[in-house]
Amino acid sequence: MTHNTTHLINGSFNEGISPFDRGFAYGDGVFRTLKIEAGKPTHWTMHYQKLVADCATIGIVCPGVDLLQNDIELLFANDEIAVAKIIITRGEGERGYAIPAVSTPTRILIKSSMPQYESSYYTDGVTLHLCETRLSNQPKLAGIKHLNRLENVLARSEWQDEAIFDGLLLDTQDQVIECTMSNIFARYGDHLLTPDLSQCGVAGITRQRILQMAKSLNLTTQVHTLPLTHLLKADEVLICNSIYNAFQVTRISNKAWAPQPLASQFRNLLTHD
Amino acid sequence: MTHNTTHLINGSFNEGISPFDRGFAYGDGVFRTLKIEAGKPTHWTMHYQKLVADCATIGIVCPGVDLLQNDIELLFANDEIAVAKIIITRGEGERGYAIPAVSTPTRILIKSSMPQYESSYYTDGVTLHLCETRLSNQPKLAGIKHLNRLENVLARSEWQDEAIFDGLLLDTQDQVIECTMSNIFARYGDHLLTPDLSQCGVAGITRQRILQMAKSLNLTTQVHTLPLTHLLKADEVLICNSIYNAFQVTRISNKAWAPQPLASQFRNLLTHD
Repeated sequence: MTHNTTHLINGSFNEGISPFDRGFAYGDGVFRTLKIEAGKPTHWTMHYQKLVADCATIGIVCPGVDLLQNDIELLFANDEIAVAKIIITRGEGERGYAIPAVSTPTRILIKSSMPQYESSYYTDGVTLHLCETRLSNQPKLAGIKHLNRLENVLARSEWQDEAIFDGLLLDTQDQVIECTMSNIFARYGDHLLTPDLSQCGVAGITRQRILQMAKSLNLTTQVHTLPLTHLLKADEVLICNSIYNAFQVTRISNKAWAPQPLASQFRNLLTHD
Repeated sequence: MTHNTTHLINGSFNEGISPFDRGFAYGDGVFRTLKIEAGKPTHWTMHYQKLVADCATIGIVCPGVDLLQNDIELLFANDEIAVAKIIITRGEGERGYAIPAVSTPTRILIKSSMPQYESSYYTDGVTLHLCETRLSNQPKLAGIKHLNRLENVLARSEWQDEAIFDGLLLDTQDQVIECTMSNIFARYGDHLLTPDLSQCGVAGITRQRILQMAKSLNLTTQVHTLPLTHLLKADEVLICNSIYNAFQVTRISNKAWAPQPLASQFRNLLTHD
């Protein structure tokens, strides 16, 4: 069934968020964005595990998997291809930062249409803007996809040029971390490196899947600090997320790379795995 | 008039926040908390100016002062003493961090009752917890009271002891910045010092007012970096915000100070100014 609405809050249509919800007041919550194919969430086990883990990092007990699956069945038609965004907040609270002794997490499911990507992204790769905005280091929140995303908003506001696909984010030490909506990989020979995200950044599911499947392409992998100067010397650069899977980066500022087949190989693996 | 409700959204009762509001999705907005006396916002000119400036820092055009004043008149009775929280967000948007070409800011006004403070806070001062959570440096957002407040939530979750009034927050270099809901001052002789907030922290109105009125108490002032070791050697430590005005800090971990009259002097000035 298809409903004439695009979101559910705690399983109900036509609801709004309470202004007392701590997700709104403080960004006290986490979220995930994932692809729906034939009405079903793709790589759901990993996404749900990540949601539970991200919630746990800030002390929220994630709603049960059945509740979220029921929401998805209610909002998406059986044959639908779309994007789902799941938000879990700590729930409502009184004024003040103290976590309420008793609170019921709020769950929000939002449906969006699948973005239509330029065909050139698949054949020629994509261009990144090098962001002036730097990510701040906060090890207590690093890796999780929480609702405090003003840095991403500021970084994304640095360009209007539609030829730019995403923005490359560094920390204050000129270390590469991620892009505003993507994780990043650099290939050197048969070695694939992705930045360490223990101080900042979001550790996405697709990054995790690429680390797992690299061996099948005869690539060794490493999670390590990655200075910008080192990234620009890579043989090949890839970015990834759960919606587009993987694209090759063929330009960052003045540095260009020729199109190569690795992103397409990973897209195949990521799509059919 | 008193309504049986505690908030207005864009001037309307009984509304909820859209889950597409960027204030909810990303914490893309700012807020202020202020005291209402006899139904009127106290130090309104400074609060509104700060709201406009904080909005401008992240590229939001703050709604006009008349709209906000009308909201306050609608929500608070003529003789009411209460706390007002004003939230301004960038408004609704599609999925993605890019700021919409056209967006209408959302304004939220929330009424809460005035906290009842222990009488000992006025006579004997208050105790601070030294937070393990450190504030991260983000000069592009430092000083403004934005909706990305997970660090405050984590810091406030470090203690349950009701004898602790607030938590002292340092940056990663052991520099004192602020408390979870307060700014901080250290007095050395007739010199009053408050931390520089150009890298992190929220520059509150009451901090600004204390800096302005210190001269009338024959104190010189300085905004400067303040290492924790230096704070603990102060002759006197004060904290402040727009609700309680000022309290003396008489304990931080093992360090204690005898009660002194400065916080009370500032409370008098802050109340009657």
